Amino acid sequence: MSDGPGGSYTRDDLTTPTRSKERAAWDEETVHAILDAGSLCHLGFVRDGAPVVLPTLYARVGNRLYLHGSTGSRPLRGARGEQGLPVCVTVTHLDGLVLAKSAFHHSVNYRSVVAHGTAHQVTDPAELRLALDAIVDQVLPGRSADCRPANAKELAATAVVRLELERVSAKTRTGGVNDEEEDLGLPYWAGVVPVAPAHGTPLPSPHTDAEVPAYLRERPC
Amino acid sequence: MSDGPGGSYTRDDLTTPTRSKERAAWDEETVHAILDAGSLCHLGFVRDGAPVVLPTLYARVGNRLYLHGSTGSRPLRGARGEQGLPVCVTVTHLDGLVLAKSAFHHSVNYRSVVAHGTAHQVTDPAELRLALDAIVDQVLPGRSADCRPANAKELAATAVVRLELERVSAKTRTGGVNDEEEDLGLPYWAGVVPVAPAHGTPLPSPHTDAEVPAYLRERPC
Repeated sequence: MSDGPGGSYTRDDLTTPTRSKERAAWDEETVHAILDAGSLCHLGFVRDGAPVVLPTLYARVGNRLYLHGSTGSRPLRGARGEQGLPVCVTVTHLDGLVLAKSAFHHSVNYRSVVAHGTAHQVTDPAELRLALDAIVDQVLPGRSADCRPANAKELAATAVVRLELERVSAKTRTGGVNDEEEDLGLPYWAGVVPVAPAHGTPLPSPHTDAEVPAYLRERPC
Repeated sequence: MSDGPGGSYTRDDLTTPTRSKERAAWDEETVHAILDAGSLCHLGFVRDGAPVVLPTLYARVGNRLYLHGSTGSRPLRGARGEQGLPVCVTVTHLDGLVLAKSAFHHSVNYRSVVAHGTAHQVTDPAELRLALDAIVDQVLPGRSADCRPANAKELAATAVVRLELERVSAKTRTGGVNDEEEDLGLPYWAGVVPVAPAHGTPLPSPHTDAEVPAYLRERPC
């Protein structure tokens, strides 16, 4: 569990990678920054003994993740009971292609967070509304205040699960190529190609007369 | 199992989503196009009864996926035995933010593939070399022919697992906003913001005199 603002998540066997430990981090600042930079996660759970990994939207609120689902979806059925559903939630940003002189040293730059824990379905209407707004704002900050809020029927049809951030780690690769000394003179191009998601021109629906809002126009891309 | 070129993957309970079935597809063309558009997957497996999801690089070669790992990494230990390791491999591309008039109808456009099966470690040196080259080319097509090939020692230090594509499905959301009829007149901006990964200017390593190669220069981004 985090020990407060500026603190760290639990560093134990589960949250310590077996490889490239020097790329791992457990501090809240690093973990939260990676989570806050995305809106799509991969949710893993076990069904009939076998792993299942599904993409879904999430939001971070303090030391919690809210994951979007819908009533009837497989993962959420398990999260309804008191016991909850053991999950692993992973968020990854691809930041660059690392092209080395040798095939072996090719790599990618990335930032990832892996969170282990037990997910529970959100049933309280106030928390459900907060979670739904947070998920909308995670996709596009400022958006939840500029659309029609969910009504009672819509809230009842929205399934969200909560995961406390406790057993969490980050892993990051940054920087340049790690070539072997004896390969440095080889004539191949080596270096890093930066990668980042870019937003195209917003395409208004046929029923939109409004100007493109500032929170959308000013979004970095 | 796929029934050959232009065929379909198995459509059964495991590969049929419980939600939004109309967005699902099982044909090879759709599945392969989604897999070929990426290089980063999320690999799920079960350890001590709990789910684990890790990001890794992959390549598709025909009806197989090769997943990159490294000797000693947790998932691959389980893939070494004859029984192999039950896995779920998911690839997701975020294509757009769908901003509706109502919070409830906010969504994202995406393409995803979910593959269930048993992963086995690649031990044959020729297959290992093929897989490593394929993974390099998946990150950047044409690259494996323009770097130093792996030597025997490097191949021995590279762990790759193989997953036959058999129980596989694709899921896609495309298009515009699905608003409620009664919300269409609301004054909020609604529409779709396209999203796609973009490549920045290649940053050469200090040991690179070569020109930026054509396969990198001409890459769409």
